[in-house]
Amino acid sequence: MADTIDERLAALNLELPSPAAPVANYAPFMIDGSRLYISGQMPVGPDGIAYKGHVGSDLDVEQARQAARLCVINVLAQAKAALGDLERIEQCLKLGGYISCTPEFIDHPQVLNGASDLIVEVLGEKGRHSRLAVGVSSLPLNAAVEVEALFAVK
Amino acid sequence: MADTIDERLAALNLELPSPAAPVANYAPFMIDGSRLYISGQMPVGPDGIAYKGHVGSDLDVEQARQAARLCVINVLAQAKAALGDLERIEQCLKLGGYISCTPEFIDHPQVLNGASDLIVEVLGEKGRHSRLAVGVSSLPLNAAVEVEALFAVK
Amino acid sequence: MADTIDERLAALNLELPSPAAPVANYAPFMIDGSRLYISGQMPVGPDGIAYKGHVGSDLDVEQARQAARLCVINVLAQAKAALGDLERIEQCLKLGGYISCTPEFIDHPQVLNGASDLIVEVLGEKGRHSRLAVGVSSLPLNAAVEVEALFAVK
Repeated sequence: MADTIDERLAALNLELPSPAAPVANYAPFMIDGSRLYISGQMPVGPDGIAYKGHVGSDLDVEQARQAARLCVINVLAQAKAALGDLERIEQCLKLGGYISCTPEFIDHPQVLNGASDLIVEVLGEKGRHSRLAVGVSSLPLNAAVEVEALFAVK
Repeated sequence: MADTIDERLAALNLELPSPAAPVANYAPFMIDGSRLYISGQMPVGPDGIAYKGHVGSDLDVEQARQAARLCVINVLAQAKAALGDLERIEQCLKLGGYISCTPEFIDHPQVLNGASDLIVEVLGEKGRHSRLAVGVSSLPLNAAVEVEALFAVK
Repeated sequence: MADTIDERLAALNLELPSPAAPVANYAPFMIDGSRLYISGQMPVGPDGIAYKGHVGSDLDVEQARQAARLCVINVLAQAKAALGDLERIEQCLKLGGYISCTPEFIDHPQVLNGASDLIVEVLGEKGRHSRLAVGVSSLPLNAAVEVEALFAVK
């Protein structure tokens, strides 16, 4: 694995976007001493929400996995905006993953692995995290997935 | 903006209610050093849950926004019970907003602005927070909205 | 009440299982100084998920209460794996309870009391916690209930 986070991002051919502005009256992140709270991030790409609808009917597992991956790219973009340098991350303590899905959908773990796998690829051991995975009836702006994060930082 | 939280509450013509007792075997809040965790609060008024049902069918966005605002009033009532004085709040670190809604509902941000706007009106810059917004299939006692909060306190 | 946690577990005739491995690429818990984050736990028994489906149609309140209790047994098993000794717990700061249920279901508090009651029985005053209770459209592997936890530890 490459030595620095920037090298790993480059190896993944991944450029972090400008962090999305909150869609309402709140902050995209809050720093409290050695903790960084990242607001729920949507699968937003250059043209807005890239994955809309309900997993299990409108989207399949692979599309939803890509949506979860994109949410984490936006989590990392917010973290970079908050910290200046992602090397200040000590540990990802928790990812909360919310999947807009049908009541019959049960493959949440595979979907959220799109988020978990990427954050470990980028941050290495510091990307290992506890996780919450639930299926919800709908998400803001019809997003298919939403991911929030908590980091220990220096 | 008025100088103290009490003056701002008065300017908003807002009197904090007696904090609601938990509807089950748990604590309405927990203090851990410099952190205050507030249990999920319902839109409870003098006569019980004031906003019931699913947003998008039983309630419209404006009613749901009022419900979210009422949840935050109850969050503040719990914080006052926990701290004695709301001036002990250093920062609202996070609001978690859960909206009981139809699968087709997508206006979660507008609804939760009822919560975010009020907490900023009352606490000023200390009211700025990270946020999670999701739509859920149902909430305790048929409440339309539930809001939990995390504060840094002194 | 018995003096030690082990004595209370024995009085409840409760043997903690081997902690379940995560069903995907994440950690079952993360320790950050004096905080222990436990990933969302399912109602897993010796033969896998013991309570499946939606509360309000597939399961009744009592079955769901047993599911919530089993989730907390798995929370405690993870905490023991994390800490070595449950006596290192200073306080349960928060339980997050997610119930897979029909849109008409409103008895979330009774269900999650299965979780809250057990953790107080086992940990005593240190088991008292703030709580979030929501109803969701579905959960991983068709589980009926999921419970995450945050502890202050020494």
